[in-house]
Amino acid sequence: MKQRLNYTMLCDFYELTMGNGYFESGMADQIWYFDGFFRKVPDGGGFAIAAGLEQVIDYIENLRFDEEDIAYLRGEGVFSEAFLDYLAHFRFTGDIWAIPEGTPIFPGEPILTVRAPAIQAQFVETFLLLSPNHQSLIATKSNRIVRAAEGRPISEFGSRRAQGADGALLGARASYIAGCGSTACTMADQWYGSPASGTMAHSWIQMFPDEYTAFKTYCQLYPNNATLLVDTYNTLKSGIPDAIRAFNDVLKPMGIKKCGIRLDSGDLAYLTRQARRMLDEAGWPECSITVSNALDEHLISELLSQGACIDCFGVGERLITAKSEPVFGGVYKLAAVENPDGSITPKIKISENVSKITIPHFKKVYRLFDKATGKAEADYLCVHDEEVDESNPLTIFDPDVTWKKKTLSNFTAKELQVPIFKNGELVYEKPSLEEIRTSCAQQIDMLWDEVKRFDNPHNYYVDLSDKLWSIRNDLLKSNA
Amino acid sequence: MKQRLNYTMLCDFYELTMGNGYFESGMADQIWYFDGFFRKVPDGGGFAIAAGLEQVIDYIENLRFDEEDIAYLRGEGVFSEAFLDYLAHFRFTGDIWAIPEGTPIFPGEPILTVRAPAIQAQFVETFLLLSPNHQSLIATKSNRIVRAAEGRPISEFGSRRAQGADGALLGARASYIAGCGSTACTMADQWYGSPASGTMAHSWIQMFPDEYTAFKTYCQLYPNNATLLVDTYNTLKSGIPDAIRAFNDVLKPMGIKKCGIRLDSGDLAYLTRQARRMLDEAGWPECSITVSNALDEHLISELLSQGACIDCFGVGERLITAKSEPVFGGVYKLAAVENPDGSITPKIKISENVSKITIPHFKKVYRLFDKATGKAEADYLCVHDEEVDESNPLTIFDPDVTWKKKTLSNFTAKELQVPIFKNGELVYEKPSLEEIRTSCAQQIDMLWDEVKRFDNPHNYYVDLSDKLWSIRNDLLKSNA
Repeated sequence: MKQRLNYTMLCDFYELTMGNGYFESGMADQIWYFDGFFRKVPDGGGFAIAAGLEQVIDYIENLRFDEEDIAYLRGEGVFSEAFLDYLAHFRFTGDIWAIPEGTPIFPGEPILTVRAPAIQAQFVETFLLLSPNHQSLIATKSNRIVRAAEGRPISEFGSRRAQGADGALLGARASYIAGCGSTACTMADQWYGSPASGTMAHSWIQMFPDEYTAFKTYCQLYPNNATLLVDTYNTLKSGIPDAIRAFNDVLKPMGIKKCGIRLDSGDLAYLTRQARRMLDEAGWPECSITVSNALDEHLISELLSQGACIDCFGVGERLITAKSEPVFGGVYKLAAVENPDGSITPKIKISENVSKITIPHFKKVYRLFDKATGKAEADYLCVHDEEVDESNPLTIFDPDVTWKKKTLSNFTAKELQVPIFKNGELVYEKPSLEEIRTSCAQQIDMLWDEVKRFDNPHNYYVDLSDKLWSIRNDLLKSNA
Repeated sequence: MKQRLNYTMLCDFYELTMGNGYFESGMADQIWYFDGFFRKVPDGGGFAIAAGLEQVIDYIENLRFDEEDIAYLRGEGVFSEAFLDYLAHFRFTGDIWAIPEGTPIFPGEPILTVRAPAIQAQFVETFLLLSPNHQSLIATKSNRIVRAAEGRPISEFGSRRAQGADGALLGARASYIAGCGSTACTMADQWYGSPASGTMAHSWIQMFPDEYTAFKTYCQLYPNNATLLVDTYNTLKSGIPDAIRAFNDVLKPMGIKKCGIRLDSGDLAYLTRQARRMLDEAGWPECSITVSNALDEHLISELLSQGACIDCFGVGERLITAKSEPVFGGVYKLAAVENPDGSITPKIKISENVSKITIPHFKKVYRLFDKATGKAEADYLCVHDEEVDESNPLTIFDPDVTWKKKTLSNFTAKELQVPIFKNGELVYEKPSLEEIRTSCAQQIDMLWDEVKRFDNPHNYYVDLSDKLWSIRNDLLKSNA
């Protein structure tokens, strides 16, 4: 396994100045609870997909300042030597719970909860937002694109337009979790296991004396994986005829029936219908047609509704940057403080903007499934010491409009957060990328179609237990 | 200096399958020329800013496949052993010219030109697009934000919403090149030298018994750098009065007059005017007011036009992701092939989309400055063996509308591309980040204000020499 970078220093500087302040104020050992959550699904979608936890785990396990870091921080001239010495021995000793990668997630619920001594709990904020924000963004966008393609494979093509190397690598990882079939990025395959694939660039065709020779050479080299780019000169007049000729001359004698063409420009609805007809008439019905060119979920849906003959989509910049809404607004907020006697005092952050008021306390998140349909009906947040009793009917209510109630009687309740770290030790068996991807698809199947609509989806319920609602309401009143 | 990652494997898989094909077809040693350029300035702006070259240099210098990479590639089952052996000894041996970082750049002109043996020239495509695309995107967006603030400093705050760790780190670097004053990202300071700064989070205030105690403690710890976040409870009723009380109790006896407050919510135009009045009346005219909260160039312009009293802006997600247009569409296209006799054959890529037709040949880029005003009048592309003679008038013309001409008589011509690698050796002295930043500001000063408008800017001329225009025209005709 190759050396990863250590991202301890990838923190907002104020985590360190605040840390120094907590240290100097004797608050270093107070136990705090923080929740990581988000407020809005990008693109007006009905759900997001959790991703980025594996990199959080790597980050926490490698959290340490080396001598060079300490020397740099000393040079800033604002930290006490006692604090620098504390940092030199800094390790994460707390607990983390998180919703596993690949799980559909909804606004307001804690995706990740940290219980740790003050400085630690505060310090990890930047990376514990950065990684899930990035990968959840790309997984959520990718899944929209995957669903638009209605079962046709999506190849992720976006490295060259990604926002940095991690944008390419971990974006490819997140897109695979969300159902893309492959990536163009070799390193994402080598490092993370999202399968790499590729066809050819226009320069391949330009470098040979003619298009046919370029195609023939490629078929000879890669007879089992020959996807030919047919739009360098003229798709219908030369590209497809030259491809058919190369298939006939090279693949046919070898008995190979599977091959492919790719179109990267022009009117894809029209050209793919023509291409399909030409390929079928020439005896290549198993030749697949791949298209690319600034695609996203809306363009893919439109192409399919226009009867385009497409077997596979290559999607680049609009996936790898989540172009239509490139920010996943996860936040990390104080939820509670543990007292020396072990009791927990819930904390709330008030805001004039009602949607920014937090849900206080150390919490649990349940997903409630209807036993008859197997579908997810609601998520249910309760205080950490509450248990949902599946044997009794459970009445849930809208936390904002409390007279809107619903009673579930035949349901199962699944806790979404699982323990990741306990006293600084990893207690979670990291699933493989394939396992995450499979689980993601299974869990999305358990959502109602109404939640999966691209536009104006049904608003999935994230409700609070009576006890949690009352605690929040009391805190709101006492702070008003 | 800390270990950077080696990004040799961060390539599109097709670079390798094509490379294997060139190798097997005996084309490995042909010398090719590729240009990296872009077609459109994001956000409808009048110019972009080149950035990302330093990471390209690091990439080229470290280009090598290690044993683990070769083993991985062998496992893919599509590469010949001869090619794998070739890769095991793969180094970059070619030439690279580039426009230095911090330079204003325009659509169509080659930002970067590669002359190298076929496989090499093709292979580096992905990273030579990824790095400049990312950093030019963020530098261009950041500079818009910097200009909107009319001299007030911008702090880059976006790490937590960046698209991956590189998005945060190199985004901070690019934003500093473009004129931001500081970053919240500690590692960006340590690694790249964009100065880190920070204030406090709401959790700092929440963790103390009351707001005043939180403020007082912070002033005691950081008397020379006390910027207090005043919107946790109620900005006007408690935040600013508590800040003034802490300044009076801690800073005043120390004779300190410089301090600050930050607002992160609410009506910033109204609140900052009130805050300014309260601070002035309390004897703190030198207390600076910083604001943040999903800002961009348009919101900053509006705040200032409404008379908001703001000294400094913190800008996060909309800068670090270039939210309004998060893709910089740089491309990398074959421009010419060198023949065994040393002559160069220009190559063109035709497209049904006229804007996608390339400018062929191994070229030079000049920027022409009017001697009287010092302003840049046009960029001028010519064939590599042409020289611009400053002592004679130069008539330039629109390459699309050739009757639109302009004659320059009192001008200087500056070549924009400089040699970076020669026969695989770095021949460029890398400037410091401060030097790049200074040069960027100076060069933007040499653009007319009409080119710098946010909306509907003047279309800066990028013209072709007579010779280059004719070569292109002939190739267009012969390919039509």
